[in-house]
Amino acid sequence: MPWFRWLTILWFAPLAMAAQTISSPNGQLTLRAYVSKGQPTYELFYGNEPVVKPSHLGLELANFPSLLTNFEVASVDSSSFDETWKPVWGEKSAIRNRYNELAVHFKERTAACRDMVVRFRLYDEGVGFRYELPRQPQLDNVIVKEERTQFAMPGNHQAYWIAGDYDTNEYDYQITRLSEIRQRMPKAVTPNATQSPIGPTAVQTALLMKTDGGLYINIHEAALVNYSAMHLVLNDTTMVFESCLTPDALGQKACIRCPFNTPWRTIMVSNDPRTLLDSKLTLNLNEPCKLEDTSWIHPVKYIGVWWEMITGKSTWSYADYQPVVLGQTNFAKLKPTGRHGADSTNVKRYIDFAARHGFSQVLVEGWNEGWEDNWRKLHNYSFTQAYPDYPLQRLQAYAQERGVKLMMHHETSSSVLNYERQLDDAYKLMNSHGIDVVKSGYVGDIFPNGGHHFDQWMVEHYLHCIKEAAKHRIMVNAHEAVRPTGLCRTYPNMIGNESARGTEFHAMEGCSPGHVAILPFTRLMGGPMDYTPGIFETDISKVNPNNKCRMRATLCNQLALYVVLYSPLQMAADLPENYEKHLDAFQFIKDVAVDWDDSHYLEAEPGEYITVARKAKGSPNWFVGCVAGLHAHMANVSLSFLEPGKKYLATIYKDGAKADIDKFTADYVIEQRTVTHRSNLRIRAVKGGGFAISIKPLERGEKVKKVKK
Amino acid sequence: MPWFRWLTILWFAPLAMAAQTISSPNGQLTLRAYVSKGQPTYELFYGNEPVVKPSHLGLELANFPSLLTNFEVASVDSSSFDETWKPVWGEKSAIRNRYNELAVHFKERTAACRDMVVRFRLYDEGVGFRYELPRQPQLDNVIVKEERTQFAMPGNHQAYWIAGDYDTNEYDYQITRLSEIRQRMPKAVTPNATQSPIGPTAVQTALLMKTDGGLYINIHEAALVNYSAMHLVLNDTTMVFESCLTPDALGQKACIRCPFNTPWRTIMVSNDPRTLLDSKLTLNLNEPCKLEDTSWIHPVKYIGVWWEMITGKSTWSYADYQPVVLGQTNFAKLKPTGRHGADSTNVKRYIDFAARHGFSQVLVEGWNEGWEDNWRKLHNYSFTQAYPDYPLQRLQAYAQERGVKLMMHHETSSSVLNYERQLDDAYKLMNSHGIDVVKSGYVGDIFPNGGHHFDQWMVEHYLHCIKEAAKHRIMVNAHEAVRPTGLCRTYPNMIGNESARGTEFHAMEGCSPGHVAILPFTRLMGGPMDYTPGIFETDISKVNPNNKCRMRATLCNQLALYVVLYSPLQMAADLPENYEKHLDAFQFIKDVAVDWDDSHYLEAEPGEYITVARKAKGSPNWFVGCVAGLHAHMANVSLSFLEPGKKYLATIYKDGAKADIDKFTADYVIEQRTVTHRSNLRIRAVKGGGFAISIKPLERGEKVKKVKK
Repeated sequence: MPWFRWLTILWFAPLAMAAQTISSPNGQLTLRAYVSKGQPTYELFYGNEPVVKPSHLGLELANFPSLLTNFEVASVDSSSFDETWKPVWGEKSAIRNRYNELAVHFKERTAACRDMVVRFRLYDEGVGFRYELPRQPQLDNVIVKEERTQFAMPGNHQAYWIAGDYDTNEYDYQITRLSEIRQRMPKAVTPNATQSPIGPTAVQTALLMKTDGGLYINIHEAALVNYSAMHLVLNDTTMVFESCLTPDALGQKACIRCPFNTPWRTIMVSNDPRTLLDSKLTLNLNEPCKLEDTSWIHPVKYIGVWWEMITGKSTWSYADYQPVVLGQTNFAKLKPTGRHGADSTNVKRYIDFAARHGFSQVLVEGWNEGWEDNWRKLHNYSFTQAYPDYPLQRLQAYAQERGVKLMMHHETSSSVLNYERQLDDAYKLMNSHGIDVVKSGYVGDIFPNGGHHFDQWMVEHYLHCIKEAAKHRIMVNAHEAVRPTGLCRTYPNMIGNESARGTEFHAMEGCSPGHVAILPFTRLMGGPMDYTPGIFETDISKVNPNNKCRMRATLCNQLALYVVLYSPLQMAADLPENYEKHLDAFQFIKDVAVDWDDSHYLEAEPGEYITVARKAKGSPNWFVGCVAGLHAHMANVSLSFLEPGKKYLATIYKDGAKADIDKFTADYVIEQRTVTHRSNLRIRAVKGGGFAISIKPLERGEKVKKVKK
Repeated sequence: MPWFRWLTILWFAPLAMAAQTISSPNGQLTLRAYVSKGQPTYELFYGNEPVVKPSHLGLELANFPSLLTNFEVASVDSSSFDETWKPVWGEKSAIRNRYNELAVHFKERTAACRDMVVRFRLYDEGVGFRYELPRQPQLDNVIVKEERTQFAMPGNHQAYWIAGDYDTNEYDYQITRLSEIRQRMPKAVTPNATQSPIGPTAVQTALLMKTDGGLYINIHEAALVNYSAMHLVLNDTTMVFESCLTPDALGQKACIRCPFNTPWRTIMVSNDPRTLLDSKLTLNLNEPCKLEDTSWIHPVKYIGVWWEMITGKSTWSYADYQPVVLGQTNFAKLKPTGRHGADSTNVKRYIDFAARHGFSQVLVEGWNEGWEDNWRKLHNYSFTQAYPDYPLQRLQAYAQERGVKLMMHHETSSSVLNYERQLDDAYKLMNSHGIDVVKSGYVGDIFPNGGHHFDQWMVEHYLHCIKEAAKHRIMVNAHEAVRPTGLCRTYPNMIGNESARGTEFHAMEGCSPGHVAILPFTRLMGGPMDYTPGIFETDISKVNPNNKCRMRATLCNQLALYVVLYSPLQMAADLPENYEKHLDAFQFIKDVAVDWDDSHYLEAEPGEYITVARKAKGSPNWFVGCVAGLHAHMANVSLSFLEPGKKYLATIYKDGAKADIDKFTADYVIEQRTVTHRSNLRIRAVKGGGFAISIKPLERGEKVKKVKK
């Protein structure tokens, strides 16, 4: 080693010894970054309380020496940032992005002398950090064998988790101590059309935890682009989580080209759970909107020909299971099932209902050729050819005359190449019919070449569709895709996702009553969910006598979800005939907004209850939703968010006296009263129940009447 | 089992005992099909001589009980067929398709009672057979674990083989006894950019063999669609070959939907090797042309900016290896290599040369953005964005003014999804510039999700490109694709393929001098090859001083290839400056036709020599080519194919007295003489040498001059 190299090392030596420290703007959080025995290390404090104990950072590489050890701190950069930006749609009309930043430049003390930067951004409610890899002789075309990011927990926290899985996140949440994950795992992995559970202590992000000291912690990621989704594997002796990326078909966890920045790894922490719900950290860590024109993007409230297939009343397919060949089979010659949901007459019934009740769109699933023979097949669906009983052109005209639009549906059954080949034509068909929202789906294993729903290439595919759709001014709501990581900031036509256990499971294996009081702390951290709420008829056998499932949620719980589960895309999922039996309660779904100027999380405890008030965008109207989860909840709702000096009419939809998720789900009370910003409402929600309130400025002389069912 | 089932079995019992026999139209070949211990079995005779000993048939399935045993013959159908069809291009203007057919209906004697039909077609020069699987309760969506088709050889034949490999067929042919394959295999597997050798006794089809009794046997397949390519694994104790399909990324060998017909398995046999070369069995087993309009399809003779990159003189990439991002990198700001082949000035030089010498197209490789950073990368190339020094629009105009077209180039580096996404735009770009031929390439491992070049999904991809290209009236010449199986009959815009060791290897590891005297017996059985012949300067160091390779072939051998290696797409592959040194010999390449009314194989012995005469389509001109392979050859060429009573001028290009593949490759003699259908020419070709003759009707009073260099 020549002498001047020694000089360099000596010069940096003091820096390598000292830990670099940075605090959040409010001083609440402190992060320390340093090298420990050659390993890049960080720790995080909430006040003086350790949130993350010393945890190592690094990347294990397949085709180069790994970036794990032999490092020193070569230099650091720190800076601050504060701006407020306006989302195209969201929970608030303006979002503040304020953080202090520390970029730590780690340098290898080996001959290769490679650089790795870790950039930390400290927000008041958490931290985001990512790896930045400059292009270097021994770091250009890199295969990541595993990311080795640790999150060392100081205690045996209570965790709200779903099983780590490379293909699905449609699991029910488990609430256990970290030490109990291993024992619970076999029960946590319930059947799914596609699944690849990772291991006995592997969990998914966003992961929520609660410490014995009353801190709420969320670990997730932001801006997942050109990389695979991260899971967490717990060492349940040391309570250290380590990242576990999703492998592709070849077992590669990521193939990257340097210079490259990984997604942000995020840790949110607060002693107030509402702070987590209110946080926009995930969105803030994503890049600003890349679409020049967003005027065509709008929230949507819709109904659809969907629940009748989920419950088994109708079929997606026109005919029964049989061999069909796209472009060759004459579907008009097949014998219909007689229960085809997308049948013209049935679709018109939905369109009429939408028009009558002010829904702007009607989703129709099973409209296109191929459902008879859609499994593990390359050419499984046409995305342009409608079934013989679905005259697209005429139905579109029928809808248009009534001020309604059709919503497109693209189920792929994970034959992704087939979808990509037709993507442009499929979007063009939508354009030619004025259809501007598509629900896409990825049921089943990735076919034909394997890989996983959350691997780098599927992550790339989902984003490819979003970008291509944007060129066609189309909004996308992808189901079974990777859970979102705030990319809707950058691409606001990403109007929704499923990526969690949704309402459909209530017509199958069911969901815990606490589920909807956990989702906002976890799944919704990354972006809106098309949860498809609003099921009024919870006895599924009344829809389909062969389906004996019962949904364990009260009708008012279903109403509350429109406010509690934020989404610019909201479905009224039940059948028109079920809504017609409860038109008074249905009124809330008709009234509730889907885009907001402001949101106030009033009460929250994961799994137990969430109460939130939101102000409709560009309107003086407010809507309040409260769900109770595993136990009944007596809500105490201060309306101090209302404009002082004004009178409002509050219409309250709440669980009735006998309401019960097992017996009387449709027992509800609707009452109206005058309220002001000084009002305080105490409302009881039963286990799996809830309430919803619409609040409108009282017109001079307007009469308040009490309505009760 | 109910009594009436027994009745059925009894009724069929006599049929199950007896072997079904069918003969070729000329009676030379006989095939017997029967059930042996429950296993479908066939054997093939040439006269009384067994060609294939009793060999089992069947399919091993992954998701259903296999179709291997417990069979009986339930019924048989036999029929005859005879028609003559006209190919869009080819070795002959009319092809006779005459066979006797036997469809043997095998039925399981199990509870499942499944059906499997094997359809045999006996031609005079060989047999084709395939499996036909009707849709049945236990046979609908099938994963083939392995096809178990046997080809039991009665002796330890001499074989002309290349190593079985799932990703490449760019190997040099080996000539050994079957028993010696295992020992030779390590030498047979030479390096390639992508390769997956199958095993110590695995070889590729088309496989050529020669028996001690003087029979020539070829095993291959026809009409490879919706299935993976077949290889052969030899049991070198019993001399039984068994089929080995190419697995996909998940190890699946084929995913099929019943009803399904496999590709045809073909066995050609004759005591005259010329019969094999002359056979159109592979084409005949393919379906008739599916393109309604073929008026736009035409043969092409072309030059190209290619050899200078292959030899290392120039670069495909505009700039050196560095990170580039399509759509973001400004290539004009990169530092050029200074050796970019597709540079405008250089391309114009080629266009000028093409115009001067009557070539209709100029291929330009390395014209498009991305070559700097093209390896193991999803978004590696743009197929629409040209490099800054390649003004496509202007060059196209420049070419058009000179009566020349540009030929498109699409290297994918096996990032297939990237290609498919751009395919439509890429073809549209070609359309908008009047470019109607594309050479595509699949160098390297299939990226990102693995699988193999010859698996079911890549086979599907290549055909997808052919079909999409046809919609754009574009002809395709795919390199590194699966070896062809006669599909050019069905899709005649499939104008060429590489799929074997081509000329390029002469600038790398080299080829055996016998190579080009084997290719017509093997690789060319399935369709034309873009072999890119015509290298005049065999000392590669004169092109690029850093490349010390020498091509071991005489100049006349290179001329002969234009006739011997049939292709409707022929390149003059050398640099213009090398042709300008031998304009007299170059005249043959300028003159030779690329489409034919008729072809006569005059002499043939695999690896040793092939002499063929062809009549240019719609012209009285004939061209003769002869290559000598491993040894010198004294050809005895009877011109009896000429029209009696007519005089012709024959221009003969033959190896000179000192011609030698190691020292004097460019020693050649050109002479002219008057010939008639009674003429007999004795011409000597050195090892790796050859000769070429152009024969034109003699104009009244035309003078014959002897030209000698």
